[in-house]
Amino acid sequence: MDENVVLLGHGSGGGLSHELIEGLFVRHFGNPLLLPLEDASVFALPQGGRIAFTTDSYVVKPFFFPGGDIGRLSVCGTVNDLSVRGARPLYLSAGFIIEEGLLLSDLERIVASMASAAAEAGVSIVCGDTKVVERRAADGLYINTAGVGIVAEGVNVSVRNARPGDAVIVSGTLGDHAVTVLSQRQSLHFRSPLRSDVAPLNSLAQSILDASSSVHAMRDPTRGGLATTLKEIAAGSSVGIDIVEERIPVSDAVRGACEMLGLDYLYLANEGKLVAMVPDSDAPSVLEAMRSNVRGRDAAIIGHVTADHPGMVYIRNPFGTRRILEMLASDQFPRIC
Amino acid sequence: MDENVVLLGHGSGGGLSHELIEGLFVRHFGNPLLLPLEDASVFALPQGGRIAFTTDSYVVKPFFFPGGDIGRLSVCGTVNDLSVRGARPLYLSAGFIIEEGLLLSDLERIVASMASAAAEAGVSIVCGDTKVVERRAADGLYINTAGVGIVAEGVNVSVRNARPGDAVIVSGTLGDHAVTVLSQRQSLHFRSPLRSDVAPLNSLAQSILDASSSVHAMRDPTRGGLATTLKEIAAGSSVGIDIVEERIPVSDAVRGACEMLGLDYLYLANEGKLVAMVPDSDAPSVLEAMRSNVRGRDAAIIGHVTADHPGMVYIRNPFGTRRILEMLASDQFPRIC
Repeated sequence: MDENVVLLGHGSGGGLSHELIEGLFVRHFGNPLLLPLEDASVFALPQGGRIAFTTDSYVVKPFFFPGGDIGRLSVCGTVNDLSVRGARPLYLSAGFIIEEGLLLSDLERIVASMASAAAEAGVSIVCGDTKVVERRAADGLYINTAGVGIVAEGVNVSVRNARPGDAVIVSGTLGDHAVTVLSQRQSLHFRSPLRSDVAPLNSLAQSILDASSSVHAMRDPTRGGLATTLKEIAAGSSVGIDIVEERIPVSDAVRGACEMLGLDYLYLANEGKLVAMVPDSDAPSVLEAMRSNVRGRDAAIIGHVTADHPGMVYIRNPFGTRRILEMLASDQFPRIC
Repeated sequence: MDENVVLLGHGSGGGLSHELIEGLFVRHFGNPLLLPLEDASVFALPQGGRIAFTTDSYVVKPFFFPGGDIGRLSVCGTVNDLSVRGARPLYLSAGFIIEEGLLLSDLERIVASMASAAAEAGVSIVCGDTKVVERRAADGLYINTAGVGIVAEGVNVSVRNARPGDAVIVSGTLGDHAVTVLSQRQSLHFRSPLRSDVAPLNSLAQSILDASSSVHAMRDPTRGGLATTLKEIAAGSSVGIDIVEERIPVSDAVRGACEMLGLDYLYLANEGKLVAMVPDSDAPSVLEAMRSNVRGRDAAIIGHVTADHPGMVYIRNPFGTRRILEMLASDQFPRIC
């Protein structure tokens, strides 16, 4: 492994990504708002009120997959990064880096899908940019979106704010996005059809905020999957997290594909799921609110936050054995989002 | 020319870019805020006040050139797009798409340059994202930045707001960025050293706003150059523009390089210049304010806005001949920014 160059694992969302972010970006850009572990930055405006601001680039391959495409992904991913900070997403930017020779019909299909996802989420794409590079200087199309939302007074949702006594709620089945994209890429076919979960989560997040005035943490487990997300929250909040394996929702199709391919759904990217930490007392009403939202029908309480073992995540399997969940170390699957 | 695929010219900032923007992006994303001709979108917040929001991707080749690099460019370009809308830039996002194998030392040099440009402009980089793609799926590194700024009450700077009787002021010499990058790329050496003008213009733009309460239009003439920018303002504001060739500041080095290479500085990208339209009566004080700013020392009044020939830009040469300036049609020089 060459230590002087960027590796695919630096983009994994796991351990190597954290090294790059903390060792390079945070070191140079360092400012109080650039918290490496948050999905969006939240800042106060001179005239009052708070704004959330986030960005992501999308390099998924292939462009089109069951349940979505790079366009839908680019809108939902940024909407979701705002939503899990407790913000109401309002406006998106869209930056396109296009390889010369891209079919205009593909571009149009992708742009139409972005427009449709934006309408579904109730956001507007208000500014953009297009760069075209020579053949072989990009792989078809990369999209960057940034997003701006407003944060209501009193809302303080952060990976640094989970507290002992919180219930850990996941909004639905895990692994659907990653397994779908991987199976497309390798032309694998399974008996049960796979479908990406890519979807905007702002209405689901709002329903959680409406059901509890003490939502402590939310996050969408994208690159690195649930395990990495929980580890980030445990580290960011200096708390321990205990989860119970059989409570974690996984579809039969994903479970089967994971067994066949030797994948662990705990580390697979999701694009339409979130994890929420709310006080135990609020958990029943939050769960009910989530389950009545189309994006949270399979929501489940999968564990609890504890004052024990701060910074560590434990998972208990059906045999009662407990093991430590670490962050994803590197990346087996580049370009999943 | 294949009409079914994206061409390099679609990223030129000229005529083909406008076709793509209007025929595809605006058609699908269409909303009142997505004005194709503005450098940044300005919107009111529910709690009061106005925000400006913009994005650009940077694909310049090579990464490093005299006077700057892709990192400095990525900060200044977005700061400037906010500044020419009359906004005070506050926060930037940074999205990196990296080709596996990029030297970490190059990445660090670029990130340090971004940090330094951000400090110079007084903005903070508050959120970011890193994606790594396989070898040959990108050309080293692409950077996207988005930016958020606040617009003071009463400020209404827009390419739709130039008015007959306005003076047309350019902040300094033209063509420096494009000629520098092109000469690096082709390993050309000229007697007079060339140097990109890439710089943040927020303090210059603020000095213009401080000197006149009626700044009608500002724009930074990047891709497509001064000619394309003036044509966009003429079209956006339904006014005519008359400029005088010998009043346009151009360095001897750029003039020489243009003659040798057959380039027209009117169409070359600048990364540290702006054009401003202010009422004739305010022009002397605006010019004085600009000249006392390090970024506007060579500022000059190069022409006037007229009610004649709306949508058209005329240039008069030293022999008194007048010709029409059209928008840049396609792109001779991809990856200039």
